[in-house]
Amino acid sequence: MKIRNALFKPAAVLAALLSFTGAPAQAEESYTLKLAETWGPNSPILGETTQHMADMAEKMSAGRLKIRIDSSNKHKAPFGIFDMVKSGQYDMGHTASYYYKGKVPNTMYFTTVPFSMTVPEQYAWFYHGGGMELMQKVYEPHGMLSFPGGNTGNQMGGWFRKEINSVADLQGLKMRTPGFAGEVMSELGVAVTNIPPGELYTSLERGTIDALEWVGPALDLPMGFHRIAKYYYSGWQEPAAEVQFLVNKNVWDGLPDDLQEILRVAMRTAAYDMYSQSTHMNSLAWDKMKEEYPDVTHKVFPPEVISALRETTARLLKEQAAQDPLAAEIIDSQQGYLKQVRKWTNISDKAYLDSLSIVE
Amino acid sequence: MKIRNALFKPAAVLAALLSFTGAPAQAEESYTLKLAETWGPNSPILGETTQHMADMAEKMSAGRLKIRIDSSNKHKAPFGIFDMVKSGQYDMGHTASYYYKGKVPNTMYFTTVPFSMTVPEQYAWFYHGGGMELMQKVYEPHGMLSFPGGNTGNQMGGWFRKEINSVADLQGLKMRTPGFAGEVMSELGVAVTNIPPGELYTSLERGTIDALEWVGPALDLPMGFHRIAKYYYSGWQEPAAEVQFLVNKNVWDGLPDDLQEILRVAMRTAAYDMYSQSTHMNSLAWDKMKEEYPDVTHKVFPPEVISALRETTARLLKEQAAQDPLAAEIIDSQQGYLKQVRKWTNISDKAYLDSLSIVE
Repeated sequence: MKIRNALFKPAAVLAALLSFTGAPAQAEESYTLKLAETWGPNSPILGETTQHMADMAEKMSAGRLKIRIDSSNKHKAPFGIFDMVKSGQYDMGHTASYYYKGKVPNTMYFTTVPFSMTVPEQYAWFYHGGGMELMQKVYEPHGMLSFPGGNTGNQMGGWFRKEINSVADLQGLKMRTPGFAGEVMSELGVAVTNIPPGELYTSLERGTIDALEWVGPALDLPMGFHRIAKYYYSGWQEPAAEVQFLVNKNVWDGLPDDLQEILRVAMRTAAYDMYSQSTHMNSLAWDKMKEEYPDVTHKVFPPEVISALRETTARLLKEQAAQDPLAAEIIDSQQGYLKQVRKWTNISDKAYLDSLSIVE
Repeated sequence: MKIRNALFKPAAVLAALLSFTGAPAQAEESYTLKLAETWGPNSPILGETTQHMADMAEKMSAGRLKIRIDSSNKHKAPFGIFDMVKSGQYDMGHTASYYYKGKVPNTMYFTTVPFSMTVPEQYAWFYHGGGMELMQKVYEPHGMLSFPGGNTGNQMGGWFRKEINSVADLQGLKMRTPGFAGEVMSELGVAVTNIPPGELYTSLERGTIDALEWVGPALDLPMGFHRIAKYYYSGWQEPAAEVQFLVNKNVWDGLPDDLQEILRVAMRTAAYDMYSQSTHMNSLAWDKMKEEYPDVTHKVFPPEVISALRETTARLLKEQAAQDPLAAEIIDSQQGYLKQVRKWTNISDKAYLDSLSIVE
């Protein structure tokens, strides 16, 4: 290890002093960025990720880059992150891109798409398959940069009080399932309802709804659904739910190169780390559910239901692509990439996991 | 955004000058670390990862942390990285932990283990399941720190010129497959040979060997094996091959806090990024092989062979655990974690991938 100690050799200090003309030396400025997150205070996994990112940035910059986090109890606008970062009210945000599909429909493709890529496939698409560039194309006109912000892992299809054995079983089923998945379910005859999170447990318990989809074991466990619904179905609707960091472009441009890189790398690592933490927490929580309620049963939708969900998804995506050239470009990119990368997943991880279950 | 410009306000500069007594102000020192990598110059994926890590560290530190990389053509000791970092001849290394099992047997468990965790499962184990702590327990007595350094993804089982339909087909088969996998294969009657990489193609073409295992599509493609062997088998032996960064502990301890964190985060991101790049490059390469040689056929070993390989692996691991308490501790930790996390993988990604292939 060679240590070079340039700035504090007396000559260097003197030179620095002599050349000092009142212009700030960028390398020594400190910055405090205000970040608004969708989540409430101390939110497990999601909120921990924001804090983890801020901690890395502060430590790597020796305190020159501080990120002050406001949770939703403070800013009162959990689904207003897009606007608040766009307007500069906040410098950064931590949220899910698809919350803003009502405002900017093309934001929805960057969180996850039904029947699309798994997490490792989607990170490969973001970083090597053109995903980052397309996401930027959507956020650029709003004066923002968008970065992957952490993954929940493959989300579960939801809690059902009765088995689903056919498409007919979906008819009239009252289910809480928001977003794109809700649209697809609704096309298949499900009565899709939206119920505030705080009322979900009681609604399911009292039969106001027959089923609901939340996230996965780690975030479902504290909600308690496993106590009142027996069937836990594997998912199809959010195979790789990635949340996002948003950064106001003027703020980003105002950071010196080193702090830009520190922020970029801190966000990138925090995002990957959230996927590792989700994997861990989901496995712990699934064990705990089964231990507390051994009757809880894992189910997969029958092929007939999967086919119907998949065809409906494909039809809706085709309609979206027909309405907007940029939507078409994003959907084409994702579907083309999926087709290529899934061949690899199938001969590697899938073949491996299949071969093990064959001999078990 | 609030900008605080402390150090270069005239009063602060004056104060800094007045307090300057010749003691180096840690925050302004520059460091150049020498890194030895196992790989040759410009090695795809592996060498790119080392360079990517160095680039991030230099940029995040505004040039205060430089990493000078020597490839194997320079240091001439591709499998001597452990010793060179231990002795301080190099400050850092980029290599695979299991190359050193002849010297320190317990290093082998931190690259990958046959029939063990997939990549997302293994990262969860490293960062949340006790893996980092156990790896440090192995490297600490040698005055080194060890960090995940990038993943190749699930490796393929190898190139075979004839189909393997039974355990009997393995009898007398001449195969290049090094390490733990070679030991397992050898127990099942395979004539395991070691052949330098440069002679592999000719050996397979001339029938000196009947089969070989290398890495996966991305690194197999330039070797050309797909031109002379028809059957490409899915793997069992390296489901999550993670390479490692090694850092000499004295060097690490001599870095100021901010540069330690910059180095730690740069290594962590570079490792995750290598997995994303591997996923991408493997999928491209597999497509290319099939395009150039449509006869190339993907195969999976029959259940009888998988069972035999798996039982042999379990027996060898049990023998290793019996010989050394730390080996037992690592194997227990990995197998316990695998048992828990695989349940989650099975109800999430595996169930999802299975449901799609059912309706295809």
